[in-house]
Amino acid sequence: MAVVAVWKCDRDGKMFDDKKAAEAHDKMLELAANITDLIENSVKGISEEHSEAIGLLLAGKSEVLAKACKGKPELLLEEASDDSVTPLVANQ
Amino acid sequence: MAVVAVWKCDRDGKMFDDKKAAEAHDKMLELAANITDLIENSVKGISEEHSEAIGLLLAGKSEVLAKACKGKPELLLEEASDDSVTPLVANQ
Repeated sequence: MAVVAVWKCDRDGKMFDDKKAAEAHDKMLELAANITDLIENSVKGISEEHSEAIGLLLAGKSEVLAKACKGKPELLLEEASDDSVTPLVANQ
Repeated sequence: MAVVAVWKCDRDGKMFDDKKAAEAHDKMLELAANITDLIENSVKGISEEHSEAIGLLLAGKSEVLAKACKGKPELLLEEASDDSVTPLVANQ
């Protein structure tokens, strides 16, 4: 028997074996929360459900979003079409 | 009398004296449109009015949004509070 370190993200309670992965998840949720705050402070009549979904959506795509903001907005559309591809899984 | 070049952004008809400024405006609107598309494709029940407002809001803050996506999410909150400061204008 042994004890092992696991890492819990305070924001949502998600558990990680790896500290770096836990920190990355926490940073993603912080970005999502701040995008949500910005939207709620600026867009009248938006529901909390929608603003939170958008925060998580955009924070989950933060790498491509950063590139899009840096002069490659077309990357956001490529990303969207990637998501809609259903992978073929054979022989399972 | 003389003729001078002016630059029109096709997307919204806005006119510019400076070509670079016109191109930057066009790129901002392209980013806004693509963020809006991504949201409309991913967030169920969002209204066109809200998704367009959010696209424009975020595209208008593309520099700080890019930094936020690169590990500085707190910048989005500073930006929000900056916006609420009313500049003092004296002697005008």
